[in-house]
Amino acid sequence: MRILGIPIFLILFTFAFAHENSNFNTHVVDRPLIVEFPENNEPQLKEAIDELQLEYCTSWRFSVEANNLSPWKTIPEECADYVRQYVTGGAYKMDIDRVSSEAGAYAESMKLGSDGKDAWVFDVDETLLSNLPYYSEHGYGLEVFDSVEFDKWVEKGVAPAIGSSLKLYQDVMRLGFKVFLLTGRTERHRIVTVENLMSAGFQDWDKLILRGSEDHGKSATIYKSEKRDEMVEEGFRIVGNSGDQWSDLLGSSVSVRSFKLPNPMYYIP
Amino acid sequence: MRILGIPIFLILFTFAFAHENSNFNTHVVDRPLIVEFPENNEPQLKEAIDELQLEYCTSWRFSVEANNLSPWKTIPEECADYVRQYVTGGAYKMDIDRVSSEAGAYAESMKLGSDGKDAWVFDVDETLLSNLPYYSEHGYGLEVFDSVEFDKWVEKGVAPAIGSSLKLYQDVMRLGFKVFLLTGRTERHRIVTVENLMSAGFQDWDKLILRGSEDHGKSATIYKSEKRDEMVEEGFRIVGNSGDQWSDLLGSSVSVRSFKLPNPMYYIP
Repeated sequence: MRILGIPIFLILFTFAFAHENSNFNTHVVDRPLIVEFPENNEPQLKEAIDELQLEYCTSWRFSVEANNLSPWKTIPEECADYVRQYVTGGAYKMDIDRVSSEAGAYAESMKLGSDGKDAWVFDVDETLLSNLPYYSEHGYGLEVFDSVEFDKWVEKGVAPAIGSSLKLYQDVMRLGFKVFLLTGRTERHRIVTVENLMSAGFQDWDKLILRGSEDHGKSATIYKSEKRDEMVEEGFRIVGNSGDQWSDLLGSSVSVRSFKLPNPMYYIP
Repeated sequence: MRILGIPIFLILFTFAFAHENSNFNTHVVDRPLIVEFPENNEPQLKEAIDELQLEYCTSWRFSVEANNLSPWKTIPEECADYVRQYVTGGAYKMDIDRVSSEAGAYAESMKLGSDGKDAWVFDVDETLLSNLPYYSEHGYGLEVFDSVEFDKWVEKGVAPAIGSSLKLYQDVMRLGFKVFLLTGRTERHRIVTVENLMSAGFQDWDKLILRGSEDHGKSATIYKSEKRDEMVEEGFRIVGNSGDQWSDLLGSSVSVRSFKLPNPMYYIP
């Protein structure tokens, strides 16, 4: 448990100052330091700075996941290591698995109508398919998004499945939900997207909705809301919605329950 | 940076097993262990378990803050220490301060109409006022909510202000927003709530809305949506909304931007 108090800011500041000035005298400060550092204090200083950075970046990630921070273009430079370690280590996978597991339990708990109108909406990128191989070469969100480069990656059609999302996908299929894939990818990427999804194990969806020419320039929130509005107008009940962006989930015709997958690498309005 | 991989679950499991069986033989497992533990391995084991618990509880907290987990009645028993340390240490305050700071920057950026119809909605408990003194005596969410005991605490009228929320409150007032306080507290607590708010530094709100008899039995999402609907019907534009529960923020007549304060202690549907 490494949760530290804000006061460590003050302590660190005082300490860092002391560190740079060898004639530092504790009597200069108004009150005694809370912790006593031994003579050779570099390791402790480094550890304390690491702790502070961990706390700062965790706080940043919370503000992202709770949709308090918007819009944002790149991850904070000081959190580059943190984000890399989060997504490449087990924590990202643990968080994703938990979302899928919650969504799966909810899906199982729902009694579906006999009219075949209960629907589950899935986003594609960072929800069903992972673009981590691309982002690993672009600083995990440290670089400003480059649509030309990203399109080249999309056109390879090799994005792997997110394992627990594939399981959820198969579960909601089995339960009898209609499955709508609603992606910000454009129609010109339809074929490669279909091929990529199928080679990653996704199949039998009821509809794959991509941005058409009429959706150009719309925010994802507006575009996706309009598409959900159409589903509702066609009589579908949107029971579940899985997406890594709040713009997948908010707006109009929102799902009975929405499941926000983590994504600390980029933000789509 | 202490982000660990899921594989440590397996490693730990194997290790814990080995630990209990002194005749453990590495050749029994199909593949070699990834890490080699020294002879006296209790400290490493404890540290690894601590790491795993930290990661597990952080993941749980994310699922709460991103509204993936609902409903829930108490915090997980294994996260009791984690939650206590989170709220009593600096991390909770850091997270709250960040939300207020984001909200403040947004409020400053908005150009208000000249008709005095731009409004900001604040929840009260765990948004403007802190009930930490109460929860500190009730396991920080480990105990099932006891409305009788909590009412006794409310009736004391001594809940302190959340510092950065008070600053945000004063800022949005100064900027000319109408301020509506929308709380799940009932009308019978109006007087003590007014007194508590004022003694904590909050004043000059435009309306304090509490649950009336007609709101009895409604979920917070429905009750608060209805009250926001009324604001919109009266011509107000809800520009900002601050709350620690998703039921403060979602439903109908949602704010242009919503700000979710952290709350890992309890859930209100």
